[in-house]
Amino acid sequence: MSRRGEFSLIGKIDGLFPLKDWGGTGGLVGIGDDCAVIPRGDGRDTLVSTDLLIEGVHFLLERAPGRHGGPSCISPFDLGWKSAAVNISDVAAMGGRPSATFLSIAVPDHIDDAFLDEFLRGYREISLKYGVPLLGGDTTSSKDSLCINVAVMGECPSGGAVLRSGALPGDLVCVTGNLGDSAAGLDFLLRPDGVSRIPSEYAEYLAQRHFRPEPRVREGLSLAACGSVGAMMDISDGIASDLRHILKASSAVCGTALAAEIDTASLPLSKTLSAFCDTFGLDPLDFALSGGEDYELLFTCRPLADIPVPHTVIGNIREAAPADGNHISWLGTGKDFQGFRHF
Amino acid sequence: MSRRGEFSLIGKIDGLFPLKDWGGTGGLVGIGDDCAVIPRGDGRDTLVSTDLLIEGVHFLLERAPGRHGGPSCISPFDLGWKSAAVNISDVAAMGGRPSATFLSIAVPDHIDDAFLDEFLRGYREISLKYGVPLLGGDTTSSKDSLCINVAVMGECPSGGAVLRSGALPGDLVCVTGNLGDSAAGLDFLLRPDGVSRIPSEYAEYLAQRHFRPEPRVREGLSLAACGSVGAMMDISDGIASDLRHILKASSAVCGTALAAEIDTASLPLSKTLSAFCDTFGLDPLDFALSGGEDYELLFTCRPLADIPVPHTVIGNIREAAPADGNHISWLGTGKDFQGFRHF
Repeated sequence: MSRRGEFSLIGKIDGLFPLKDWGGTGGLVGIGDDCAVIPRGDGRDTLVSTDLLIEGVHFLLERAPGRHGGPSCISPFDLGWKSAAVNISDVAAMGGRPSATFLSIAVPDHIDDAFLDEFLRGYREISLKYGVPLLGGDTTSSKDSLCINVAVMGECPSGGAVLRSGALPGDLVCVTGNLGDSAAGLDFLLRPDGVSRIPSEYAEYLAQRHFRPEPRVREGLSLAACGSVGAMMDISDGIASDLRHILKASSAVCGTALAAEIDTASLPLSKTLSAFCDTFGLDPLDFALSGGEDYELLFTCRPLADIPVPHTVIGNIREAAPADGNHISWLGTGKDFQGFRHF
Repeated sequence: MSRRGEFSLIGKIDGLFPLKDWGGTGGLVGIGDDCAVIPRGDGRDTLVSTDLLIEGVHFLLERAPGRHGGPSCISPFDLGWKSAAVNISDVAAMGGRPSATFLSIAVPDHIDDAFLDEFLRGYREISLKYGVPLLGGDTTSSKDSLCINVAVMGECPSGGAVLRSGALPGDLVCVTGNLGDSAAGLDFLLRPDGVSRIPSEYAEYLAQRHFRPEPRVREGLSLAACGSVGAMMDISDGIASDLRHILKASSAVCGTALAAEIDTASLPLSKTLSAFCDTFGLDPLDFALSGGEDYELLFTCRPLADIPVPHTVIGNIREAAPADGNHISWLGTGKDFQGFRHF
């Protein structure tokens, strides 16, 4: 199924399961944001998200028979880390505090005990780092591919979750951290001559950014608490795709078609990404805008707002002609950009 | 991975993620019961469970290329129903009220839009029947098999969840409904000459019990509320396997090795199951005890307790010699029984 097919399936599910058929909303947020938001009635909201990671689609393994190995294959430790990280990041993207994960894993014959031990060690390490216990799950066999599903729970003050739909005309568009490192890391790892042409500490940095993302939990909590953030999500498919989700959701809520201008000269790029692109004659914008899996936070805020975490302003939101809604102008480049595609 | 391998992996995960490493328990129940129990602090507990269903392991599909079709293949409607049903059943098994599900689905090329429409129709029907909204999930492609993960949330009064660990010596062992129909349904569907030898209404009944289980939500709520139930779980692998989980968990809590006696003459069997077994010369005990996927409730209670739902007493719990712990005596038969194995 293509990424387009996924969005069409999500739309179909969204249409078949309107909240009104189950007695209305009452503050409930269902399909369409990084997490569902479920009011508890005691001043707190529960956040829930779930992510599937499928071998051959989201990651490659050394051990799969008949498939090429090599450095683009994720280690079992990093796979354990990343499986939890991308889910914890969904709670961070709402400004919530992650409270528990649930791990479902379907194990094919080519996965052995040593692999599972390392996988669990990585999962445990990030679970300890972010203080999120593993409280349950499911284990089963699989005929072909390793399949991993993680469900994450979190919480936030009632009504305090930052949705994708809160952007307004005039808002600034901001990001935490640097963009494009993870996608550049994957590109680098897929190059047979990669290792010989850039310093080893650059190689390690890019691989680490790709294989071991850090969910921005503290940043998300601060951004939600400061009260100045309109919309927020984590960057999983690249800004070119993810920012369109914010525009679409926010247009529907504010009743005005929204568009965005991004100043490509202002994008935060690591020195390593720039050096890597210089060496191989690549355009860092491709990684920073169309690359995926940064797991940094993309958010909007009012101009002059006091934002309590390090961030970079990369553009702004404006009213658009209705036909021009969800359009992104890329200032400083003649190119257009799309989001990340999986293997 | 064998069923034995699954239990070994669960044990490994349980050992690596002790709750004390995340700041203790405080009423929290993690890995090892039908659901995790998460105290909210406002007089209610949240229940969470998650189940993976993998093509070729948990179900067969007509549409899979290179695989045999036939009546043992589940229809997409029933697969949608069953994916939600087995998860809702986990909340029922704790005596909780299900409140939301989250659907993750990895779709291979041999699954088309018509299949997904029917799948979602079945999922929607049971979600409406039990009043449980779908609030989120994930969709992605898959290289080989259709993979479905459902996470379910529910709630119950604080401390009101009925665990597997509450059985005591002298307790009666009880079940709701009839046992073995689902496993007999699968056996029947796998027989090329099945349809010609039993009445069509019998065939329909058995197939329905296999493909479209009903989670015992109302029964679970009543059993938890009555205060007389010690331990409870849903029957997914057959009593021969599931009752051992109750014995093991309860032995650890009460500090006494527990065993059980089951009177095989008292097992609740449907007329259809008996007629099916008569026709084909089969032993109904094999289905009732080693069969799986009944999704009836297995529970223990004190003798003479007033139990508010229809049920059958099938045996009792007793103290055992330590070496004899978790042993089940099958009165009225010379056979021993084990739990269900997947394809």
